[in-house]
Amino acid sequence: MAGYSIASLSKLVEQFERMPGVGHKSAQRMAFYVLNLKPEQAKTFAESILQAHEKIKQCERCCNLSEEALCPICKNEMRDQTTICVVEDPRDVMAFERTHEFDGTYHVLRGVISPMNGIGPEDITIKELLARLSDGTVKEVIMATNPTVEGEATAMYISRLLKPMGITVSRLAYGVPVGADLEYADEVTLTRALEGRRTL
Amino acid sequence: MAGYSIASLSKLVEQFERMPGVGHKSAQRMAFYVLNLKPEQAKTFAESILQAHEKIKQCERCCNLSEEALCPICKNEMRDQTTICVVEDPRDVMAFERTHEFDGTYHVLRGVISPMNGIGPEDITIKELLARLSDGTVKEVIMATNPTVEGEATAMYISRLLKPMGITVSRLAYGVPVGADLEYADEVTLTRALEGRRTL
Repeated sequence: MAGYSIASLSKLVEQFERMPGVGHKSAQRMAFYVLNLKPEQAKTFAESILQAHEKIKQCERCCNLSEEALCPICKNEMRDQTTICVVEDPRDVMAFERTHEFDGTYHVLRGVISPMNGIGPEDITIKELLARLSDGTVKEVIMATNPTVEGEATAMYISRLLKPMGITVSRLAYGVPVGADLEYADEVTLTRALEGRRTL
Repeated sequence: MAGYSIASLSKLVEQFERMPGVGHKSAQRMAFYVLNLKPEQAKTFAESILQAHEKIKQCERCCNLSEEALCPICKNEMRDQTTICVVEDPRDVMAFERTHEFDGTYHVLRGVISPMNGIGPEDITIKELLARLSDGTVKEVIMATNPTVEGEATAMYISRLLKPMGITVSRLAYGVPVGADLEYADEVTLTRALEGRRTL
């Protein structure tokens, strides 16, 4: 009945358990998955962690993830350089790219202004955004921060900075998500959907 | 609108996605978790994969996972060497150890006989089990394979081998799981629970 544990297995389980959305049981399953890998595969797995971590940096222009000085989107000369879509996180860039409907460029704030968490305007990439606007190429900035209190506040803050520069600042439309059930929509969303109604 | 992907990030997502119970979205979340680790932490994570893989071998006696020739349970002289609990998988050993109610030793079959999947008696650790029984120390073997068709068949197969050796072979009790709702118990389980009823 003595304690029974295998140090290197416990360590691995612990590592997996730290990941978002992974409980102890899942972590254990993942660790066993690793144990059952071929040595080569385990090496590839471990290396992919190190490689991703070492190679991926911040794009010098838009602050998106990038393996080079400029990310693939900033480097792409086919993209419309006059429109910037401002998002909070690199994952948001991926979400927009999946729509295949936006051909402008992005700017990744890498967070939102959140006084509660001690995050001020200087802690996100607002100065990098302002630097991109100085040469007059950009005509429109689309604020695509999350529809949360902090996302809203950040969008408002930035739009107030940009408007005096003569740049069009727009915000994503609010409304009911496509495919959703109106019955379950919250009041605020429904109100916004009504306000934003369009003539057919 | 050109393809947008960061090679090392995609590779990492792919690695996580291969794990059991991990879909694309979770894999992406995990990859971002890795990107946000400190370099030291990422190194520890990658190393824990390699270490677990390299260090963990099979216990020479019971075929459980072990970093040394003998696993902590086989090495522990306080454990009752006369009783062996036969399980399919190292995870089952962990499950029994969590009960703190069994102080015998284990034997890990590393699978079950499954003609459908081309797994015969020689593909699991039956011969290792028989070798352990040759010196007459073991008095009882508890068959604790899973209550599935294959687990049953394997338990039957092994018990037929052992009985002529004068060893007591027992099987885990079947019945309703503690805390379960009888209403949802399947017929087979209920039948077994009735058959195995005890006088109070």
